[in-house]
Amino acid sequence: MEKNDKILELFKEQKDSYLSGEEVSQSLGITRQALWKHIEKLRDTGYIIEAVPHLGYKLMRAPDKMLASEIKWNLKTKIIGKEIHFYESVGSTNNIAYELAEKGASEGSVVIADEQTKGKGRLGRTWVSPGKGGIYLSFILRPDISPNEVPMITLVVAVSAVRAIRKFAQVEALIRWPNDIMISDKKTGGILTELKGEPDRVNFVIPGIGINVNTPKGALPEGGTSLKEESKSSSDFKRVELAKIFFEILEEEYIKFKEKGFRALESELKSYSCTLGRDVSVTTGAKKKFHGKAVDITENGGLRVKLDDGEEKVFLSGDVRFMR
Amino acid sequence: MEKNDKILELFKEQKDSYLSGEEVSQSLGITRQALWKHIEKLRDTGYIIEAVPHLGYKLMRAPDKMLASEIKWNLKTKIIGKEIHFYESVGSTNNIAYELAEKGASEGSVVIADEQTKGKGRLGRTWVSPGKGGIYLSFILRPDISPNEVPMITLVVAVSAVRAIRKFAQVEALIRWPNDIMISDKKTGGILTELKGEPDRVNFVIPGIGINVNTPKGALPEGGTSLKEESKSSSDFKRVELAKIFFEILEEEYIKFKEKGFRALESELKSYSCTLGRDVSVTTGAKKKFHGKAVDITENGGLRVKLDDGEEKVFLSGDVRFMR
Repeated sequence: MEKNDKILELFKEQKDSYLSGEEVSQSLGITRQALWKHIEKLRDTGYIIEAVPHLGYKLMRAPDKMLASEIKWNLKTKIIGKEIHFYESVGSTNNIAYELAEKGASEGSVVIADEQTKGKGRLGRTWVSPGKGGIYLSFILRPDISPNEVPMITLVVAVSAVRAIRKFAQVEALIRWPNDIMISDKKTGGILTELKGEPDRVNFVIPGIGINVNTPKGALPEGGTSLKEESKSSSDFKRVELAKIFFEILEEEYIKFKEKGFRALESELKSYSCTLGRDVSVTTGAKKKFHGKAVDITENGGLRVKLDDGEEKVFLSGDVRFMR
Repeated sequence: MEKNDKILELFKEQKDSYLSGEEVSQSLGITRQALWKHIEKLRDTGYIIEAVPHLGYKLMRAPDKMLASEIKWNLKTKIIGKEIHFYESVGSTNNIAYELAEKGASEGSVVIADEQTKGKGRLGRTWVSPGKGGIYLSFILRPDISPNEVPMITLVVAVSAVRAIRKFAQVEALIRWPNDIMISDKKTGGILTELKGEPDRVNFVIPGIGINVNTPKGALPEGGTSLKEESKSSSDFKRVELAKIFFEILEEEYIKFKEKGFRALESELKSYSCTLGRDVSVTTGAKKKFHGKAVDITENGGLRVKLDDGEEKVFLSGDVRFMR
C-alpha cells in the first residue's frame, strides 16, 4: 500500500477526531516534513484536510471523485476492483482497459474515469457521457469461454448493475435486453462489451458501463435519465458508494456464472426485464432488422421473439428498440 | 509507387537486356546520380544488378526474400496484398497485424516476415518457425460477421492454402480440420486466427499462417514436413510465387464466402479433408477433450463427431488429433 493510502486509512479509522502528526509519522516511519508533503499531495487530489497546531490533522471531506483509494476503502471483493486505474478524464475507458488487458492486466482490474470524452456505444456509435456526475468504468475479465458466449458477460454485468442500482438508489431499474439500463422506460445506463479471442476461447472480455448518476437533466440526451432525476433526490448520490456495491454484486454474479453457467442467472434476468411482452425491433450486427414481440429469455440469455410473420427467432445479441 | 518499385518494374519489363541509365533517369525525372543511389539501395536489399559501361544496368537476380515489391509484381488481386508490410524478422506476424488493424489498416493488408522468432500457435502455444525457408504471414480481414462465425474464416484460409499448395508444388496437401495443413499425415502448415469484436460483430479478424516451404528436414519439429521435402524437389521453391498464388486464390474464396456464405465452400472443404472417417480426439478451448469418429462436415464448417458413447456432437472449432 502506498503511503498516501495508509494515511487515508488512518484518517478513516480515526473518524471525527484529530490525528497527531507525530504519531502518524512515527507509525509510517517518515519525518514530520515528509508527512506534511503527503498531506499536501492529498489536498491536491481534492481532500479537505484541516491542520490545527497541537491537535494535528483531521479529514474534513473526501473529494467527489472516483478515486481508487476511496473505492478500495472497505471494499469486500477478492477479484473485482482489486486493481483500479483511475483517470480524471479519458477518451474511452474501454480503450484503456483493452490496452491494459493486452499488456497482461489481471482479471477483475477496473478502469474508471470521472469524465469520458469519447464514450463508445455499440457498433461504433457514440455513448454520450455528459460531463461529471456519471460512472464510467470498464472491467477486465478473463473467463474461460468461447467468443459466442460473450453475450452472456454483458448480461451478467447488466443484472449486477440493476441489482446495485436498486439497492443503492431505491429506484426500479430494469434491463432492456441485452445492454441498456432503464428506469421508467428512459435510459440511465448502457453496456458495451468488447473482446479479443481465438475461434474457441477468449483472451479477455472488456465490459464497459456508463451510468448517469447525478447528471443534471439539461445534460442528458433525449430519452435519457439519471438516478438523481428518477429518485427525486435533492442531494447528489455518492458515486463511490454505488461503485462499491456494484463491484461486490458483480463479483457474486460473475462467480455464479463461472461456476454454474448462465442458467443460474436466468430467472434474475427475467425478473429485471422490461423487454418481455413488448413489441420490439431487433437489429443484429450492422445487417438486419427484425420486428416482433419479445416472448421469452432462453437459458443462454437469448431473446426469443415472435416475428411479425409468425416465426420465432432467438437472438443471442442485438440492438432492441421498443415500438410505440 | 516508390522510385525503387518503378525501377524494378522497368527491369522486369526489360527482361534479359540492359536498361540504359540515361533513359531510366529521364523517364523517372531524376539525375543519373540519384538513379545510381536507388540502384545501390536495391543492391542492399539483395538484388544482384550488373552495371556495364555504355550498356547500362541489368537485373541478374532477385533476392529470396518475401519483399513486398516482389510479391506485388503482377499480382492479380484487388484486396488481398494491396498493402504489404514486410519484415526480415519479427516476433509474431499476428501481433503486428493486430496492432496495424487497431490503427485502421485496410481489409486485405498483409504482414509478412522472412523469419518469426515467437510464432504463436493456437491457445497460447508456440508455433515453431524454423529459420528462413518458410512463409509466415497474417491477413487483416474485416468481414461483416459475428464472433461465432470466425471459425469459418480459418476454414476459408485453410481451403485457399491447400488449393495454392497443390497448384504450386503438385503435392497432395490436405486439411486436418480446422487449421492444420497436412501432407502424408505430417504437418506442413498451421493457421492461428485471432479477432477483436463485440458480441454480435467483429471489428477485424487476423488469420495467420505458417507454411514450411523449403525448410530443411533437420530444422522441422517432430511430425512436421515441408513442401520441398514432400515434393522430393532438389532446388528451393520460390516462396514469392507461392505467396502470389495463395493471395489470388484466397481473394477468390473470401469473396465467395462473403457473397454466398460458407455453404459455397463446403464441398471443397470436404474434398480436402483428411479428418473425415478418422478416429479423433477433439479438445475445445482450454477445457474438454472428446473422443470419437469424425463423420461429417456441416454447412457451417463444423465437424460432426460420433463420440465413443454413441452420441453425435458438432464442433465449430477445436483442436483435432488423430488416434493411431
